[in-house]
Amino acid sequence: MKTLILVTHPNYDESNTQSFFKEACSELETVTIYRLAEYKATEVLVLQQLIRETDRLIFQFPLYWYSCPGELKIWIDHLWTPTLYQQNLVGKELGIVVSTGVSEEAFQAGGQEKFTLSELLRPFEALANKSKMLFMPIFSLANFNYLSEEEKKVILINYQQYLTKINSPQFKIKEQWFIDNLKKKNKMIQTDSLAQVIHQLEENQDYLLSLQDSLAEMKEEL
Amino acid sequence: MKTLILVTHPNYDESNTQSFFKEACSELETVTIYRLAEYKATEVLVLQQLIRETDRLIFQFPLYWYSCPGELKIWIDHLWTPTLYQQNLVGKELGIVVSTGVSEEAFQAGGQEKFTLSELLRPFEALANKSKMLFMPIFSLANFNYLSEEEKKVILINYQQYLTKINSPQFKIKEQWFIDNLKKKNKMIQTDSLAQVIHQLEENQDYLLSLQDSLAEMKEEL
Repeated sequence: MKTLILVTHPNYDESNTQSFFKEACSELETVTIYRLAEYKATEVLVLQQLIRETDRLIFQFPLYWYSCPGELKIWIDHLWTPTLYQQNLVGKELGIVVSTGVSEEAFQAGGQEKFTLSELLRPFEALANKSKMLFMPIFSLANFNYLSEEEKKVILINYQQYLTKINSPQFKIKEQWFIDNLKKKNKMIQTDSLAQVIHQLEENQDYLLSLQDSLAEMKEEL
Repeated sequence: MKTLILVTHPNYDESNTQSFFKEACSELETVTIYRLAEYKATEVLVLQQLIRETDRLIFQFPLYWYSCPGELKIWIDHLWTPTLYQQNLVGKELGIVVSTGVSEEAFQAGGQEKFTLSELLRPFEALANKSKMLFMPIFSLANFNYLSEEEKKVILINYQQYLTKINSPQFKIKEQWFIDNLKKKNKMIQTDSLAQVIHQLEENQDYLLSLQDSLAEMKEEL
């Protein structure tokens, strides 16, 4: 399964959040990051081809006045031609990775921002509907610079899953994602403790409850 | 009361809808139209000053992928500095004039577009909230090119009211708007029939119910 991230950030190179996301993608072979800077008509055909070839498309951006930065919207206005959305996107997934400068609790009725991120990002859900794509739950990340290292590790895994995990209600598939990714990691860092975790995971595939505990332990060890 | 319209349209000069809106504004002295084309940093200060001096700010655009065209969002990203929204907008009104290529009924649960315009344009409502502005009901115009001349006349009056009428639940203020505007029109076109309508309106100010009938008649005569 191929994933394409279209990322827009007015100060991409200085953003700690975007560096973190970029680093998290570096070990994922099926994920391509494409930075959308100022609109250039000459790039449209290349990008449309990339979009056609992907299975999961991600828009990644910081929330700017309750939506994406204007640069991304200009790109969407030009990329989403009838040929693209009527023929080439059916059944694919559309995900949103959004970073915010205020806490998640602010985005609710009665909260500081009054509306949820799901409400504010409805235009993207509508775009997915129109293109007959599956709209994924929004992946949001608040106040990155204030997170502890422990919190960042958990977010790293969640983010990598958001990009590459096959979406299924079955626990087995979630579990398989962990086994596959730990095997890859093991090749790179060669530690015995990871090999043990993998072995343990494979042994216990029939015991979902005990597996959930292992997953929690494993997160701590990473 | 001063009104400033910030209008964005990728083909402004060829748009029948925008010509219609422009024509409707031509006789309104308190209304200024400012066209936002490609973003230019040199215009920011001038525009911020115009926004500071207005009482009612209107964003006017065609709905492009369930939001404003990207060009407008880029302008908002640059104009809405903390100095502007924390100090200069409190208590002012923010309105949206949006034209759509599909019918109004499409924008509802179960409809073709699934979401209402109120839902899709939440980011603008959130912008108003953050700036402590009053968010006006959205003014939407669907399928302009298919409207009859009669329908366009009604929309013309509704649009002019949206731009200039003091918002109040009192019927008296709505009525005064008609009297004032008919007086201006009368000066320009000098017809006896309009003078009679004005006279009748002024005579009957105490009889709200009969006035409503007059208003309906007047709309037909225009």
